[in-house]
Amino acid sequence: TQNYRITLLPGDGIGPEIMAVAVDVLKVVGQQFDIQFDFQEALIGGAAIDATGEPLPSATLDTCRQSDAVLLAAIGGYKWDSLPPHQRPEGGLLGLRAGLELFANLRPAQILPQLIDASTLKREVVEGVDIMVVRELTGGIYFGKPRGIFTTETGEKRGVNTMVYTESEIDRIGRIAFETARKRRGKLCSVDKANVLDVSQLWRDRITNLSQEYPDVELSHLYVDNAAMQLVRAPKQFDTIVTGNLFGDILSDAAAMLTGSIGMLPSASLGASGPGVFEPVHGSAPDIAGQDKANPLAQVLSAAMMLRYALDQPQAADKIEQAVLQVLEQGDRTGDIMSVGMNLLGCRAMGDSLIKA
Amino acid sequence: TQNYRITLLPGDGIGPEIMAVAVDVLKVVGQQFDIQFDFQEALIGGAAIDATGEPLPSATLDTCRQSDAVLLAAIGGYKWDSLPPHQRPEGGLLGLRAGLELFANLRPAQILPQLIDASTLKREVVEGVDIMVVRELTGGIYFGKPRGIFTTETGEKRGVNTMVYTESEIDRIGRIAFETARKRRGKLCSVDKANVLDVSQLWRDRITNLSQEYPDVELSHLYVDNAAMQLVRAPKQFDTIVTGNLFGDILSDAAAMLTGSIGMLPSASLGASGPGVFEPVHGSAPDIAGQDKANPLAQVLSAAMMLRYALDQPQAADKIEQAVLQVLEQGDRTGDIMSVGMNLLGCRAMGDSLIKA
Ligand SMILES: CC(C)[C@H](C(=O)O)[C@@H](O)C(=O)O
Ligand SMILES: CC(C)[C@H](C(=O)O)[C@@H](O)C(=O)O
Repeated sequence: TQNYRITLLPGDGIGPEIMAVAVDVLKVVGQQFDIQFDFQEALIGGAAIDATGEPLPSATLDTCRQSDAVLLAAIGGYKWDSLPPHQRPEGGLLGLRAGLELFANLRPAQILPQLIDASTLKREVVEGVDIMVVRELTGGIYFGKPRGIFTTETGEKRGVNTMVYTESEIDRIGRIAFETARKRRGKLCSVDKANVLDVSQLWRDRITNLSQEYPDVELSHLYVDNAAMQLVRAPKQFDTIVTGNLFGDILSDAAAMLTGSIGMLPSASLGASGPGVFEPVHGSAPDIAGQDKANPLAQVLSAAMMLRYALDQPQAADKIEQAVLQVLEQGDRTGDIMSVGMNLLGCRAMGDSLIKA
Repeated sequence: TQNYRITLLPGDGIGPEIMAVAVDVLKVVGQQFDIQFDFQEALIGGAAIDATGEPLPSATLDTCRQSDAVLLAAIGGYKWDSLPPHQRPEGGLLGLRAGLELFANLRPAQILPQLIDASTLKREVVEGVDIMVVRELTGGIYFGKPRGIFTTETGEKRGVNTMVYTESEIDRIGRIAFETARKRRGKLCSVDKANVLDVSQLWRDRITNLSQEYPDVELSHLYVDNAAMQLVRAPKQFDTIVTGNLFGDILSDAAAMLTGSIGMLPSASLGASGPGVFEPVHGSAPDIAGQDKANPLAQVLSAAMMLRYALDQPQAADKIEQAVLQVLEQGDRTGDIMSVGMNLLGCRAMGDSLIKA
């Protein structure tokens, strides 16, 4: 029997509901593949603010550090929106990324044939789209200094943030991206704004240099404005995309929305050492929280990514992914992906159907 | 007779061809509305680099400053891509924006019923889309200091750019945006990343404050990642969008691509005083330059925007816009917007057809 310590961070909104489904699915798969999960739950986001006054209590970070992987659901909600920025739920997420040094964020955007009509794009444009965005997650303008709101000599306020990348930061995310592309279709597109930004020039230089070590990967470069256009114009041209923290935030969301069903998309955030964090791309959906309406599939697929990337249990991961495809094939749908003639299920019932599958 | 001095900056690639058509159209409209144009041509971009070694010779800036408006075509091309960044054609464009203090960039993205099938999005999603992106153009990370590539104590290189906005910079673009929204459908969406960036928090505060002066405009806020998603998910929800330089660069291109026909989209860049610059959203298309294949309509519509915003000649602007609709209605198409059953025309022939119309 393999034993793994998994930290569960249910967070806010629909988080606890979808987490419960993912845990049930993991337990069943664990029995089948002789894997034992030791789950510990910890607080993050709004739930942590309510209980402790902080979005990321140090006990949570400690628990995460002592585990083999972290499964996160979603954070945030209207309730905490009026707090000062660094005290908000988002601060917990940024603190977790920094605290665990999760520099590599993998966000797949894949069109499932069963859900292709959910896309706002024409079928022929999105059919077969399968993009992996590799986003740098602990650098760039999210963490660069100086930052703050300062008062100038004339008494005027001035807001400042700094976009910074060092060579070693670029290289380590670059390597993950080349290796990811190598395991996929061998195409990597690096996105920057090198025609305007110095930091992007350094980015482009280093990625270009690195490509000599990966002769089997075809590298291209796009400016971020053009990349946003190309995602809308012809998304099939992309295989793997690598980019900085801010551009990755924007482009991975745009890519996710091409599928029309972000309730389906998982993500992985990996560090140099220590546990990775696995979470859905979607948010905490406070408007439907507690109503058994949420789509648990992105959370379940995040658990599958955890099995694959953190625990080296690809067969268990495959099993979960197959079960997801099977319930979709059967016509099971939560409200967000419902269409005529399908079976509308709640969050719990979708979990039950998955477990049967 | 009204007299206007207009600086023409044909630039690179297809620039000269599409500029020639716009000038012909302006001449004809001038005769009809008793407007006399005094055109002076000046160098910018790659053409200026080849002739003078610089992308924006000071003579060009002087000529622009002495004119009532500037009509720009497009700059850049593969030929100059290997030059060091500040010597490249793009440097000329950034220098022009800074030199003329063009802080407000207006980029409409409108779906024309005749071209709706060119969109990669489903008809029902884009039908009637009519978005105006108001992008701040002389501040933010494009011009913030410090900037550069520095060497750290450990000998490693570090690329740095700074995103900065002062209160007065935010206020002046905010006012243009509220006034623009007021003349349109009265809805303004401000886009920032206030959950992460200090500069965005200042941005959001000031825009919120300003809204008290515009009670007739309905203000909303979106984070930039969500805005990129919403443009793909449900673009009809937007009327006017206001945002900073970098986010505006990305989102205006994404919005433009929703139409599927960026060869149709004009833009205006306006300053506090002094002449504005009017130019197509598309680039210099070096691959089809000199082949009489370019679509001149965005350039012609940029001339119409010039008549409307800089020269206060709305009737002449209307006339041009009507002519564009009429040739489309007749089925005239350049290659980029061609579809079955339409008449394929070259750049010149499209110009002739416009003049007839
Ligand atoms: C919530 C926010 C801080 C976060 C980010 O900007 O990284 C989110 O948008 C994401 O992409 O995970
Ligand atoms: C060419 C480039 C410098 C420019 C920009 O980034 O502003 C372009 O993308 C634009 O949007 O006009």
